[in-house]
Amino acid sequence: MSGADTVKEDRLWQRHADMAKLGGTPKGGVNRQALSPEDAQARNLLALWAKARGFSISTDAIGNLFIWRQGTDKHAPPVMSGSHMDSQPTGGRFDGMYGVLAAFEALEALEDAKIATKRPVVAVAWTNEEGSRFQPGAMGSAVFAGHYKLDEMLQVKDWKGVALKDALAETLKAAPAPATAPFKVDSYVEAHIEQGPRLENEGKTIGVVTAIQGSRRYIVETLGEEAHAGTTPRAARKDAFQAALRIANAMYEATTDRDDTLRFTIGRVDVQPGSPNTVPGKAVFTIDMRHPQDAVLDIHEKKLRDIVAGKAAPCTATIERITNVAPTDFDPKVIDLVRDKANALKLSNMDMPSGAGHDAMHIAKLCPAGMIFVPCERGISHNEIENATPQDLAAGTRVLVEVLEALANR
Amino acid sequence: MSGADTVKEDRLWQRHADMAKLGGTPKGGVNRQALSPEDAQARNLLALWAKARGFSISTDAIGNLFIWRQGTDKHAPPVMSGSHMDSQPTGGRFDGMYGVLAAFEALEALEDAKIATKRPVVAVAWTNEEGSRFQPGAMGSAVFAGHYKLDEMLQVKDWKGVALKDALAETLKAAPAPATAPFKVDSYVEAHIEQGPRLENEGKTIGVVTAIQGSRRYIVETLGEEAHAGTTPRAARKDAFQAALRIANAMYEATTDRDDTLRFTIGRVDVQPGSPNTVPGKAVFTIDMRHPQDAVLDIHEKKLRDIVAGKAAPCTATIERITNVAPTDFDPKVIDLVRDKANALKLSNMDMPSGAGHDAMHIAKLCPAGMIFVPCERGISHNEIENATPQDLAAGTRVLVEVLEALANR
Repeated sequence: MSGADTVKEDRLWQRHADMAKLGGTPKGGVNRQALSPEDAQARNLLALWAKARGFSISTDAIGNLFIWRQGTDKHAPPVMSGSHMDSQPTGGRFDGMYGVLAAFEALEALEDAKIATKRPVVAVAWTNEEGSRFQPGAMGSAVFAGHYKLDEMLQVKDWKGVALKDALAETLKAAPAPATAPFKVDSYVEAHIEQGPRLENEGKTIGVVTAIQGSRRYIVETLGEEAHAGTTPRAARKDAFQAALRIANAMYEATTDRDDTLRFTIGRVDVQPGSPNTVPGKAVFTIDMRHPQDAVLDIHEKKLRDIVAGKAAPCTATIERITNVAPTDFDPKVIDLVRDKANALKLSNMDMPSGAGHDAMHIAKLCPAGMIFVPCERGISHNEIENATPQDLAAGTRVLVEVLEALANR
Repeated sequence: MSGADTVKEDRLWQRHADMAKLGGTPKGGVNRQALSPEDAQARNLLALWAKARGFSISTDAIGNLFIWRQGTDKHAPPVMSGSHMDSQPTGGRFDGMYGVLAAFEALEALEDAKIATKRPVVAVAWTNEEGSRFQPGAMGSAVFAGHYKLDEMLQVKDWKGVALKDALAETLKAAPAPATAPFKVDSYVEAHIEQGPRLENEGKTIGVVTAIQGSRRYIVETLGEEAHAGTTPRAARKDAFQAALRIANAMYEATTDRDDTLRFTIGRVDVQPGSPNTVPGKAVFTIDMRHPQDAVLDIHEKKLRDIVAGKAAPCTATIERITNVAPTDFDPKVIDLVRDKANALKLSNMDMPSGAGHDAMHIAKLCPAGMIFVPCERGISHNEIENATPQDLAAGTRVLVEVLEALANR
């Protein structure tokens, strides 16, 4: 009996339903932001399941949670798989959680099939992938990979002024786990819903992920002068929102590429003081810009900076780049392995880059890495109505367990 | 000795300084929003001063605070003067507060000059003029005038969900005052800083206010679809902020009148879910639009509605009018009286309409009413750096006390 044969579709689906109750929203999505009480509940539930199967758990200084299934070689670095359990404020039940539960299902399937592996196989739940409460996102995996500094990340504050280190301490108090010693990773494979429409449109079950597009995030701030909405003539106004609007407008235009590959999003907008009868004195908005080629991002960043400099008057404006994640190319051998196992399982598949960033982009700096995508309904993600089928989730997990077994026995 | 002679510039200025400590901000402004703990502190301080002068206080069901200096005719309706003590979230120390303290100074000056009046003279602090926490603004005076219904206003909630009736109960618990029986008003005069640049530009000390421009407030809401910022192609997006931006842009253009008389302001903007890497699914913004002629407001409201209908696709959008305050023409006899008294005191003056709304617009429906403006620095108001000179504040108060005495002895 192979690992793929013992993947249980019902068990995997039920685990998604159980997790979706933690932070569940009336519209069927979840609000389980990083290091919230709901995040702690999810950690406890996963730890409970791990304990029931005899897997050990451990955590590191940024709160990444590891579930260990030991290998026959005690000294071999583990093969790892996982994703994240935190969600957007109005997120879905599959983004991130599928990768964690698929990895856990893989451990259970190996256990059920009584398959011993040379290397340990570890399921991981990375801390704060979404970056909606604490920025930057994919923080846990980036700290693990040495890409971000632990001390700096612990100082990060959310929009209410809560420091990450305090939220983390609260979370680990509510969901304790033994501290892990530093360890090396042999290889890494992450399963995830596609979060885009391509697999569904092409009628494929498995996305063999070849790369992740580069992603940059910016904050634009405009400064004007607060004034009375009833008495201040237009000519005398320095309206910070109007300046933000001119800038945003020009940016949307400048990022309209013919082949619709560049992704440009203004997701958060804050206008101060936010009173209906006061001309705004300050506006702040975020930009999320992505493209598979770094050079294209460079060109457009230059355009954004020119627009901020040119369109602010009579206000002033600044643009600050707060994250810059270069495009990631996955390991050719892992890519081939994913494709081969999908074919061996007779699952339709296609090669594709990832439109979204994932924890795998950081771990790919440490070791050979790859990803497996499954379709999600209408490509909708970061949305409470995000959906996927039990069959597709199980199919992706069957590919995953076969890939992990092969990597763990190389 | 006349009332004007006994107005004390220093006392009036000191009272402004004392009040500015309640909700004082580091930049020298105030944050004393309606029915907040700071509002209660201001009520208590005013009541303390009233008690020290032997004036009685009373309050009505919406929390308007009255300070009574009795007249010789016990049955005569009072002459009233005042304004409001609540501020914008980042407001100045003179907007509203000047009108209350000028009225109180007028009571003190009459007392100091031992001038008896036939009618009582009442200083009033109206509840919630700013409308920044609870909408609509000028609420206390509108309820007093019967223009808004008390029961409806008590149900209004702030942006945090706190009902006005609960905030009012808290405030009156912290700053108790005896309930007043319903009473009629003989006439009303409100002193206020101009909140615009005209008096300063023309080098005049006193604005003889002839009218208040009409004011309408709207809420625009756009609905799109939340989607992942990294994976969703531009062509597949329904970005609610982009729709809001198209609509706002067209509105700014449509309200650009040649003589710069129409006032159009977008002051509050809320974008949901407000995550940097999620395409916004919803955006809400407020519009404040004002003009001295109702017909001009009608024409532009039609334009706004057409823009909302025409520019939303692929999103949907709605516009709702939430307040509509018609232009107010003040009483010709009160206007003449203000101008005559300013001239008698040899204070330079000019007739002018008010760009801002004031409590006087509601009270003008009840009885003959007028207003007195004094200059404020650079016309800046609704801003922590709002400023006025002790001399101008005292000059306006000297006109006020003379006008009130004349009205109270007619």
